[in-house]
Amino acid sequence: MIPRYTPPAFAALWSSETRYAVWLDVELAACEAMEAEGLVPVGVARALRDKNLKLDPARIEEIERTVKHDVIAFLTHVEELAGPDARWLHRGMTSSDVLDTSLAVLLVRAADLLLERLDGLIVALSRRADEHRRTPMIGRSHGIHAEPITFGLALAGHLAEMKRGRTRLREARSEIAVGKISGAVGTYAHLSPKIEAQALAALGLRPETVATQVVPRDRHAAFFNALALVAAGIERLATNVRHWQRTEVAEAEERFTQGQKGSSAMPHKRNPILSENLCGLARIVRAAAMPALEDVVLWHERDISHSSVERMIAPDATTTLGFMLERTSSLVDGLVVREENLRKNLELSGGLFFSEAVLLALVSYGLPRQEAYVLVQRNAMKALAGEGTFRDLLGADPDVSARLSAAELDRCFDLEHALSHVSGIVDRAIAAP
Amino acid sequence: MIPRYTPPAFAALWSSETRYAVWLDVELAACEAMEAEGLVPVGVARALRDKNLKLDPARIEEIERTVKHDVIAFLTHVEELAGPDARWLHRGMTSSDVLDTSLAVLLVRAADLLLERLDGLIVALSRRADEHRRTPMIGRSHGIHAEPITFGLALAGHLAEMKRGRTRLREARSEIAVGKISGAVGTYAHLSPKIEAQALAALGLRPETVATQVVPRDRHAAFFNALALVAAGIERLATNVRHWQRTEVAEAEERFTQGQKGSSAMPHKRNPILSENLCGLARIVRAAAMPALEDVVLWHERDISHSSVERMIAPDATTTLGFMLERTSSLVDGLVVREENLRKNLELSGGLFFSEAVLLALVSYGLPRQEAYVLVQRNAMKALAGEGTFRDLLGADPDVSARLSAAELDRCFDLEHALSHVSGIVDRAIAAP
Amino acid sequence: MIPRYTPPAFAALWSSETRYAVWLDVELAACEAMEAEGLVPVGVARALRDKNLKLDPARIEEIERTVKHDVIAFLTHVEELAGPDARWLHRGMTSSDVLDTSLAVLLVRAADLLLERLDGLIVALSRRADEHRRTPMIGRSHGIHAEPITFGLALAGHLAEMKRGRTRLREARSEIAVGKISGAVGTYAHLSPKIEAQALAALGLRPETVATQVVPRDRHAAFFNALALVAAGIERLATNVRHWQRTEVAEAEERFTQGQKGSSAMPHKRNPILSENLCGLARIVRAAAMPALEDVVLWHERDISHSSVERMIAPDATTTLGFMLERTSSLVDGLVVREENLRKNLELSGGLFFSEAVLLALVSYGLPRQEAYVLVQRNAMKALAGEGTFRDLLGADPDVSARLSAAELDRCFDLEHALSHVSGIVDRAIAAP
Amino acid sequence: MIPRYTPPAFAALWSSETRYAVWLDVELAACEAMEAEGLVPVGVARALRDKNLKLDPARIEEIERTVKHDVIAFLTHVEELAGPDARWLHRGMTSSDVLDTSLAVLLVRAADLLLERLDGLIVALSRRADEHRRTPMIGRSHGIHAEPITFGLALAGHLAEMKRGRTRLREARSEIAVGKISGAVGTYAHLSPKIEAQALAALGLRPETVATQVVPRDRHAAFFNALALVAAGIERLATNVRHWQRTEVAEAEERFTQGQKGSSAMPHKRNPILSENLCGLARIVRAAAMPALEDVVLWHERDISHSSVERMIAPDATTTLGFMLERTSSLVDGLVVREENLRKNLELSGGLFFSEAVLLALVSYGLPRQEAYVLVQRNAMKALAGEGTFRDLLGADPDVSARLSAAELDRCFDLEHALSHVSGIVDRAIAAP
Repeated sequence: MIPRYTPPAFAALWSSETRYAVWLDVELAACEAMEAEGLVPVGVARALRDKNLKLDPARIEEIERTVKHDVIAFLTHVEELAGPDARWLHRGMTSSDVLDTSLAVLLVRAADLLLERLDGLIVALSRRADEHRRTPMIGRSHGIHAEPITFGLALAGHLAEMKRGRTRLREARSEIAVGKISGAVGTYAHLSPKIEAQALAALGLRPETVATQVVPRDRHAAFFNALALVAAGIERLATNVRHWQRTEVAEAEERFTQGQKGSSAMPHKRNPILSENLCGLARIVRAAAMPALEDVVLWHERDISHSSVERMIAPDATTTLGFMLERTSSLVDGLVVREENLRKNLELSGGLFFSEAVLLALVSYGLPRQEAYVLVQRNAMKALAGEGTFRDLLGADPDVSARLSAAELDRCFDLEHALSHVSGIVDRAIAAP
Repeated sequence: MIPRYTPPAFAALWSSETRYAVWLDVELAACEAMEAEGLVPVGVARALRDKNLKLDPARIEEIERTVKHDVIAFLTHVEELAGPDARWLHRGMTSSDVLDTSLAVLLVRAADLLLERLDGLIVALSRRADEHRRTPMIGRSHGIHAEPITFGLALAGHLAEMKRGRTRLREARSEIAVGKISGAVGTYAHLSPKIEAQALAALGLRPETVATQVVPRDRHAAFFNALALVAAGIERLATNVRHWQRTEVAEAEERFTQGQKGSSAMPHKRNPILSENLCGLARIVRAAAMPALEDVVLWHERDISHSSVERMIAPDATTTLGFMLERTSSLVDGLVVREENLRKNLELSGGLFFSEAVLLALVSYGLPRQEAYVLVQRNAMKALAGEGTFRDLLGADPDVSARLSAAELDRCFDLEHALSHVSGIVDRAIAAP
Repeated sequence: MIPRYTPPAFAALWSSETRYAVWLDVELAACEAMEAEGLVPVGVARALRDKNLKLDPARIEEIERTVKHDVIAFLTHVEELAGPDARWLHRGMTSSDVLDTSLAVLLVRAADLLLERLDGLIVALSRRADEHRRTPMIGRSHGIHAEPITFGLALAGHLAEMKRGRTRLREARSEIAVGKISGAVGTYAHLSPKIEAQALAALGLRPETVATQVVPRDRHAAFFNALALVAAGIERLATNVRHWQRTEVAEAEERFTQGQKGSSAMPHKRNPILSENLCGLARIVRAAAMPALEDVVLWHERDISHSSVERMIAPDATTTLGFMLERTSSLVDGLVVREENLRKNLELSGGLFFSEAVLLALVSYGLPRQEAYVLVQRNAMKALAGEGTFRDLLGADPDVSARLSAAELDRCFDLEHALSHVSGIVDRAIAAP
Repeated sequence: MIPRYTPPAFAALWSSETRYAVWLDVELAACEAMEAEGLVPVGVARALRDKNLKLDPARIEEIERTVKHDVIAFLTHVEELAGPDARWLHRGMTSSDVLDTSLAVLLVRAADLLLERLDGLIVALSRRADEHRRTPMIGRSHGIHAEPITFGLALAGHLAEMKRGRTRLREARSEIAVGKISGAVGTYAHLSPKIEAQALAALGLRPETVATQVVPRDRHAAFFNALALVAAGIERLATNVRHWQRTEVAEAEERFTQGQKGSSAMPHKRNPILSENLCGLARIVRAAAMPALEDVVLWHERDISHSSVERMIAPDATTTLGFMLERTSSLVDGLVVREENLRKNLELSGGLFFSEAVLLALVSYGLPRQEAYVLVQRNAMKALAGEGTFRDLLGADPDVSARLSAAELDRCFDLEHALSHVSGIVDRAIAAP
C-alpha cells in the first residue's frame, strides 16, 4: 500500500479511522444483542451511538504503547470519551471477537470495491470484444503464427477469464463474510449463539460454524487465493498487450497520453509500461497467497502470528488489486488497435496457416494422415524458404494436384470459413455469468 | 509421486497406461461426435473400439524420440495397431484438444479419489468429535492456558474446516471438468461447437466458454489452490496432534503399532511422526499452488510452458494429498486420548481460567471494566506466584469480597456452565454440509 | 512498511527525500566522471553541489503526473531549481543508470542497517548462550523428551545459525553493491567504462559485468533470498520461545513489561506475543523472495515489471527484517529463564533419557544391538506405565543385571558425563565467524 | 523426477541402491573413527568393508514396514548380511547422524553434477557470445526497439549471469558439505568431536558448528535457493529465445531436428518448445525453494517434518535443474542465428534509435535538455507516422539544422561508433570468474 498504487477508496477503507470506527460498530452491535438478551441494560448502545464518538487513533496508539494490547487500548479510549456506560461494552467478549468480526467487515467492503472495479473491467472487455469480433488476426501458439482468429476473440478469452475471476471473488466474499462473537475460546462461556447471530446479522455477516478464539484462517487463505487468481488473469492480458505492442508486431498499443515521455534517453519510444507495471503488481498480489496459506496453521485455539501478516497483506493485496483493476479497465478502454498491422501480420506467411485445411482435405480424399502431413510440410518448408507462395507450391506439387483440384485447394484458403464460428464464441463470453 | 507416498489408486491413475487409454477415449468420443455430424463415416469409432487396442507406452515413447511430439507419436502408434481407419481420428483437432480434455478427465478422477478420502476423514472426525463432545480440556491461546473447551470441540473445529475443504474441492472439481475440442486456436475452424458438446458430454465434461489452443490455466490454478487449502487444514490438525503428544502435555497421541520403533538411539520414545510427516507433505502440496498460478500467463493462444509443470505437479500434488487424507483418517481414527491428562492439565492452574467470569461478575456489579481487570489480574499473579489458589485469594481480597459473596464467587467457578454451549457447537459441525 | 513495524532508521532510508537525494548523488558522481573525461565542462558538478539543492518530492510527483516518467520529472525539477547548468546532468545516460545505481546505494545502506542489528542479536545470543552453557535442560525431538542438553546449547544453535545468516547477508550486500552507468542498452554508446568505474567508485559500488538497460535482477533475488533465510532463522528461534513458554513447559518466557495486558478477557495470561509476531513477520519477508525471483526474467534488454515489485518489497522486506532483528535482540536479552522448571522437566521421565547409555553398555557387553534395544525398550515401557523408575526396573530385570552390575548401570545415569562436550560446542558457536 | 526429465546420472544418484550404499559408507567411516578412539575393536570396519555387502533395498523396505523406522530397518538388514560384527555399527549414533551426513554426501554429489553441466553451458555461451560479438542487433526495452547492441552482447549477459549462478552454486555446495555424528541431540554424549571430525573428513565433509539432532535446515534452504536462482537465469535466456523465434522477429531459433514435427494440426510450424519447456521447469525448481525455507523452523532439537519434503524436492529440484542445464547447453550450441533478420529488424525504424545521439548533440550545442527532447521527439513521431526517414526529417527541420550541420547529423547516425565498447564488454564476461 504505497501512495503510487493506492486508489482513494482503498486509502479510506484501510485508514485507522475506519478501522476503529468498525471496531466500535462491532462492539455496539454486540451490545445491542446483549441488551435483547438481558445481559446489558436496555438503551446502552443507543446512548453510546448518540454520543457520536470521534475516536482518535493517535490517542489509542499512545495507550497501546503502555498496555501493549490494541483492543484494550481502544476500549480504554472509548471509556475516556464516553464515560461509565462504556463498561458495558465487550462484555464476555474476547479481543478477537472484535478484531475478526471487524476484519470480516473490512474484507467484505474490500471485496465490494474490487467487484465494482472488476465489473468495470468486464464492461470494457465486453465492449472491445464486441467491437472487434470480426477483426481478423493471426492466432499464435508458441509465439509462432498458427491459424486465424479475431482480435475480439482474443479479448473474449480474457473476458471469460475475468468473469470466472468474478465468480471466484464473489465466492471469496461469501467465505469471508463470517464473524464470531463467542468469547475467549469460542464456547460462548459468557455469551450465546443467539447474541452472536443477532449482532452479526446487523453487520451483514454469518456466524462461524466452529470458531476457536478466532475465525479459522482457511477462509482468509481462500480469499487471498481468489485475489491471486484475478491478478494472474490480469497478468495474462497485460502480457498479451506487451506482445501486441512489440515493435515488430505493433497490432495494438496502450494509449499514449499528451505530454507523456517514453524514455529519458530515447525520445521516439512508446512503451507498454502500464502493462509491464500490471505484470509486476500481479507478482505482489500472488505473493500474498503464500503467507495467507501459512497462517492457517494456528496453534490450538489460536496464536497471533497471523495478525502481523494480515496487517500487511490485507491492505496491500486488496489495494494493489484494486489499482490493477482500475488501470486494466482504462488500458482496455484506450487500447489502440492497429487493424492495418493485424492484416499485414496475418498475411505475412502467405496463407501458410491454411495448411491444416489442406491436410484435412488430403485426408478426406483418403490419404493416411501421416503421409498427408509430410506432403503439406514439404510445401510449407519450401514456402518458408521463399520458393513461392504456399498456395502456388501446393498447386504445382503433383502429389497434391493428383488429389485436390484447384477449386478444392481454393476452398482450403477461405478466411471467412475459418472464422465462421468465432462470432458465436464471442457471444458466449458476453453472455456468460 | 514417490512410492513411499503413493496409494495404489493414484499410481494407477497417473500411469502411462491410463494416460494413453484416456487419450484414446477422447479421440473416440470426438470421432463419434464427428460421425453424427457427417465429418467421419459412421461406424469408425465403433470399429476402433471393437478392436480393443492394447496401447504400448514404450512404443509410443520410442516414436516420440523421433518425432518429438507426444500426440503425433500416440496417433502413429494407434495407426500401427488399428490400420487405416485410424486416419479418421483427430480430424480437425489439435494436440491440445486431446491433451487438455484428457487432463480434465484425469483431474476429475483425481478429485473423485480425493473426495472419497476426504469423506472418510470427515466420518472419522465426526465420530471422534461426537465421542469427546463432553471430555473437558483446557483451551489454549498462544500456547497458554485460556478457558475450558472439550476435546470434541477441538476436533469439531477441524471437522468444520475439512467440510469447507470439501466444498472447495467439489467446486474445484467442477471448475476443472471442462474440455475443449475446438481446434488449433479454439475457433472450430474444422469442427463445430456441436461436435465438441457431444464429445465432451460423453466424457462427463463441459465445453470451455472461450478456449485458445488450450483450456485457460486459471482453472488449473484454482484446482491446485483448493488442494493447498485442504493440505493446510490437515497441517493444522497434525500440528495440534504434535502439541497434544508433547511429553509435558500428553493429552492425545498417535496409535503406536506393534513392532514400531521410535528411535534408533532412544528405545523409550514414542514420537508423533505421522503428524510431522503430514506437516511436511502439506508444504509440498502448498508449493504446487505457486507454479500453477504462474502457468496462467500463457502467451497469445498458448505456449507450452505449463506442460512440464503439470506433468510433475498434477500427479505429485493429487497423490500427496491423497496419501495425506488416508494417513490423517487413520491418525484420527486411532488417536489415543488420555482423559486423565486432559483433566490434570485442566486443573493445573487451579481455576485461573475462571478469571473472566470473575471479571464479568465484578463489571456486572458495577465496577468499571479496567478497574475490575486490575483487581483480577492482581490475584491471578499471586496465584501464579504460588501464594494460594486463585479462588481463595479472591475470597481473601477485600476489594473483591466487598463486591462478590462467596456464593457469587463459586458460581464463577462452574465448569458445567462454562461448557454449556459446547455440545450445540459440535452438533453444528456434524450437521454442516 | 507500516508504522507499527518500521524502525525510524528505515523510515528515513526509504523516504522520498532520501530517494531523490541519492538520485542527485548519482547524477553528480556521473557528472564529475564525465568532467574528467572531457564530456562535460569542468566544475559543473561542483557548482551544482554548492547550490545545496533542496529537492521537493511533492513537486517532482506533480511533474510526473504529466510526463509519466519519474526520472524526467526529477531532472525537470532539478533544472527548475538549479538553472541551465543542470542540462549537463544525465548526459548519455538512461533512467536506469540513475535508478538502478541508486537502488544499489539504498540496498547497501539497508544491508548495513540490517548487519548492525544482526550484530546486536549475535551479541545477545552469545551472552545468553554463555550464561546458560551449563544450565541442564531436556533436549526434545518430535516434541518428546530425548536426551539432556543445556539451555546455552540451544541458544548456541541459534547463535551459529544467525552467524551463517550474517555471512549470507554480507555476501548479499556485496552482490548488490553493483551499479551501471552504461546507457540505454548497456553499451556505453555515449559513455565509457572509465566514466562508469569512476562514478560508481565514488558511490562505493562496482560496475556490472554485463548490464542490459538495467542491472540484472538475479542479484536482487539473491539479496531477498538472504533476507528470507535470516527471517527463517528468527522464526525458528521464536518458535522455540513459544514452545518454552507453553503453560506446561514454562522453561523460559518473554519479559512481561510493566502495565502490559495479556488478554482483554483473561487477566491472568502472559502470552509469547512477541515471538508469535516474529513468526508472522517471517512469512512476510519470506514471501518477498518469490516475486524477486520472478523479476529475474526481464524481456530482452529489460522491461519495467520489476519496478513496481521493488517499490514495495525493497522497503517492506528490509524494514520488516530490521524490525524483527531489533525485536529479537530485545527478546533474547530479556528472556526469563526458569531454571527450576528446566530441572523439573528434565526429571520428569525419571532418567528414561539415559536409555541410550544403557543400550550402548549392553552392546559393549556383547549383546546384538537389536536384542539390546528390545531389552531397554521393555523396561522403558514399564517405566512409562508407572511400574517403577527406569533405573530400578533395569536393575531388577535379570536379562539386564546378568550383564551390567549396579555400578555399571549407575555410570549410565550420569548427567555430567552426558553433557561433558557441551561447553566446547558453545565455545565453537561463540568463536565462529 | 519423472523419467522424461531425468538424466541417467541423476537417476543413479537418487536410486535406493546409492542411498543405502552411502548410508553404509557413513556407518563405516564412523566406525573407523571409533576404532581410532578405542570405542570399537580395531579392524571391524575393514572386515565389514571386505565383505563387500550387496544391500537389498526391497528387503530393507520390507523390514521397515514392520519397524516403521528406516535406519533401524537398514541396520537390521546389514546385520542379516554381515553377522555379529555389524552390532558395532551405529554405536552412540542417532539415525540423523547417518541420514543427514548421507544427505550431505548426496547433495554434494548432486552439486558436482550440476556444476559440471553448468560449466558446459558456460562454455557454450562463451563460444556463441564470442562468435557473435560483432553481429549487430537492435536492443529492446519494453519489447520496443531501443538502441543497437550485438547478438554476442545479449549472450554475454546470460553468460555473466550463469557465472554468477556458478559462484552461488559453489557456495551452496560448500554450505551443504556439512555432516554431523554427534548423537541424539548433538551433544556427543556417547561420541566425541574428534570421532566426528575424522569420520566426516573421510567423507569430504565438515562438522556442523552446533547440530541439534540434525544439521540445521537453513543450509538446505540456502542450497535450494541457489538452484532456484540458476533456474531463473535459464528461464530468462529461454524467454529471450522465445522472443527471438517469434514469427515477426525471427532473429534466432532452436535447431529443428530431422523428423521433428511442430504441430499435429499445422505442418508448417517450428516452435520454440525447448525454451518453453525450460520456462516451465524453472517454475518447478523455484517452487522447491519455498518448502525448503519452511523446513528451517524445526521444533526444539528437531522434528521430522523436513524429511518428507526433502525426499521429494532433493531429487526433484536437482534432477530438474540438471536436465535444464543439459537442455540449455544444447539449445545454445544449436541456436540458429538469422543474421539477415537481425539486420532487417535493426533497420526497421530507419535509424530512429540514433535519436539519443541527436539529442546529445543538440544538448552539447547548448540547447536545454528538455527542449532538445521535444525537438527530437517531434521528428521521431513524424518518422513513425511515415512522413519520411528520421535522418531526412531532422535535416529538414529548421530548428535542428540551425544547430547541427549535415556532417554533424551524419556522425550521430554511426553504428560502428555506437557499438565501439561492446567487444570489450563481451571480453569482460568471458574473463569473469
